[in-house]
Amino acid sequence: MSFVADTAVKAIENAYTANVVDGWDVGGNANGGYLMTVAARAMADAAERPHAISLTAHFMSPAGPGPIRITPTVVKSGRRFATVRATIASQQKPLVELLGSFTDLEAIEGPVRIDAEPPDLPPPDECVRLQPGSNGFAPNMLSHVDLRLHPDDAKFASGRPSGRPLFRGWLRLIDEPVDAFALLLAVDVFPPTVFNANLPIAWTPTLELTAHVRGLPEPGWLRCRFSTRFITGGMLEEDGEVWDESGRLVAQSRQLALLPRG
Amino acid sequence: MSFVADTAVKAIENAYTANVVDGWDVGGNANGGYLMTVAARAMADAAERPHAISLTAHFMSPAGPGPIRITPTVVKSGRRFATVRATIASQQKPLVELLGSFTDLEAIEGPVRIDAEPPDLPPPDECVRLQPGSNGFAPNMLSHVDLRLHPDDAKFASGRPSGRPLFRGWLRLIDEPVDAFALLLAVDVFPPTVFNANLPIAWTPTLELTAHVRGLPEPGWLRCRFSTRFITGGMLEEDGEVWDESGRLVAQSRQLALLPRG
Repeated sequence: MSFVADTAVKAIENAYTANVVDGWDVGGNANGGYLMTVAARAMADAAERPHAISLTAHFMSPAGPGPIRITPTVVKSGRRFATVRATIASQQKPLVELLGSFTDLEAIEGPVRIDAEPPDLPPPDECVRLQPGSNGFAPNMLSHVDLRLHPDDAKFASGRPSGRPLFRGWLRLIDEPVDAFALLLAVDVFPPTVFNANLPIAWTPTLELTAHVRGLPEPGWLRCRFSTRFITGGMLEEDGEVWDESGRLVAQSRQLALLPRG
Repeated sequence: MSFVADTAVKAIENAYTANVVDGWDVGGNANGGYLMTVAARAMADAAERPHAISLTAHFMSPAGPGPIRITPTVVKSGRRFATVRATIASQQKPLVELLGSFTDLEAIEGPVRIDAEPPDLPPPDECVRLQPGSNGFAPNMLSHVDLRLHPDDAKFASGRPSGRPLFRGWLRLIDEPVDAFALLLAVDVFPPTVFNANLPIAWTPTLELTAHVRGLPEPGWLRCRFSTRFITGGMLEEDGEVWDESGRLVAQSRQLALLPRG
């Protein structure tokens, strides 16, 4: 069970192959952030740039365990950025379509002005670890990460949602440091925000997710915050912030998710 | 001068042609929201779905006035959503790469929960209209829209930035009602938020912009809010909210923009 090994890709002629490893799933369907990480490795390799700076995925069909093929196309390779699109497909059909810009984040610098704070969290030992099997809301993929929710946000699991569509918590990989690829997983691994809203609880499938990698994380814990302000017309956004252990914002995300109908 | 006419596309074999009309520019380069609108018309036509629900554009090269070609590919046409990618290219090179999901927004409904308010704005007549030629910050494209800034956010134009990277204001088209396509323009037509930050003022080129169309707007004024919380590592995000005259959120946007170097 290794994030790096489980998201590895292998170059073949004009494409990459990978294996959706059993266990990175929610009810049998591979996690979206996991699939984005696999695709990003292929896209970064094709572009010869180490990091995604902005990556968008549209999820078309669920991915079960087994072989997948990633076909990246470098649309433009510029001096600073490469623009790359890609399709993840099973043997039967396309599953995820992606578009991103890739660069070397170490080479990017400039002035800093921050009008926000990392989420205020008790120490990890005083937070609530979500583990598979502990309740109906803890999918298999939680065995691959160490996810600890703010106690105020964790009571949904015992039938007491906070009433606010918000999750805050710590996240790290098991036995591996977090890196720029792990941020693509981090933005999609918390429970859906609607689990804490006063709405019928259901998984909310992601139509589209965009992640901005804003910096390279220090190894260690990530501080994460996911919230929703607008539930309208059968859909909702989930806004994510990921900060590293040193207190720097390292990723932002927004996904458009669908509310199950009736 | 018509938004609908100036963003029209014409189907040819396997692609669409359009004309970047002079005047929708900032310093000679066509506005990003204008280009997204043109592309969205071609993508929606190819997908046979009336509305973009989520559309991402990566901007690779500036577009001057003249002919462009839009090549959409429908990756998947599902029951509710179609996933479409597209390239905008000049005769010389690719300019913008896009990926979006298209649907019929009239058919989408569900529960509503809103944890936000539209921006609090004085009536349009008490706001500050930005017009081309009135100062150095008012590009040509402002002759095509009626953009009225909150007075508190408008003093940047006379050398007194508010100190907060925030713009609020009213927006409408000249002599045309706003529709779902116009929202793609609306999310990119306000001045860059850094014009109100205490940073050297400069245009911030957009690397990537994602727009979520959350509802179909009533004809009339749009209430808009654009803000930035994180300026880090040579880049910044701009978060946009667009509300219609009836007070409904109709679009959200986020762009990743670059700070000029040196």
